[in-house]
Amino acid sequence: MAVRLVELDPEECLRRLERGGVGRVGVSVGALPAIFPVNFAMLDGDVVFRSGPGTKLDAAATGEVVAFEIDHADTFGHTGWSVLVVGVARPITDPDALAEARRLPLSSWADGDRDTFVRLESARITGRELSVHAAR
Amino acid sequence: MAVRLVELDPEECLRRLERGGVGRVGVSVGALPAIFPVNFAMLDGDVVFRSGPGTKLDAAATGEVVAFEIDHADTFGHTGWSVLVVGVARPITDPDALAEARRLPLSSWADGDRDTFVRLESARITGRELSVHAAR
Repeated sequence: MAVRLVELDPEECLRRLERGGVGRVGVSVGALPAIFPVNFAMLDGDVVFRSGPGTKLDAAATGEVVAFEIDHADTFGHTGWSVLVVGVARPITDPDALAEARRLPLSSWADGDRDTFVRLESARITGRELSVHAAR
Repeated sequence: MAVRLVELDPEECLRRLERGGVGRVGVSVGALPAIFPVNFAMLDGDVVFRSGPGTKLDAAATGEVVAFEIDHADTFGHTGWSVLVVGVARPITDPDALAEARRLPLSSWADGDRDTFVRLESARITGRELSVHAAR
């Protein structure tokens, strides 16, 4: 058996993103890289998650390019996949879009004032999967 | 019930890291942020993972500061935790350390030439957990 990393096409990446759930956002905090888990959902093909004033996530999610990743790993079978979204993170301010975002199944990782809905705009979406082939 | 994000102390963070498994590395690829899943293990308190020549991970893991994250989320119970390691990524070159690294339970996400063992040096380790409290 040979295991190879193969690219997922954009439609397949979107299909896996549409499931929502937990993803990770990669940002810079004070010139240092950081990764935080977030609950997310899709809105018209864009990744959306919640943030709040004063959070580390909020500081980095206002017009900066951020990375967002979801994955699934089976450590025993040594198989898995990941989807990477790179886009400009902006708070949703349009009232109609905000009303839509509030209806998404998006719980925050902590309660309190997390009323900002952040959307990844102009995103580039790529994905990879470990593919198992019978050896020749 | 109130849910709050509390800091995990460094010892508790290390305890969770010692379990190994799958984590995510945050790097810059061509000035854009990216996140990749990796299998990892701990070596003398440092995060170690495998990389290979020509991979996106390899390009960014030679003396750069990278972020490494592990988490556990229960989306139904709205609980979870995450540990973030920020450190300088360097290939292990010392023969004794390399021999130790080769004995770690570290499978690569794909076969092929993934003989580089990358170690996060001088790392800063922080962690957060969602803590559920009875409301007053």
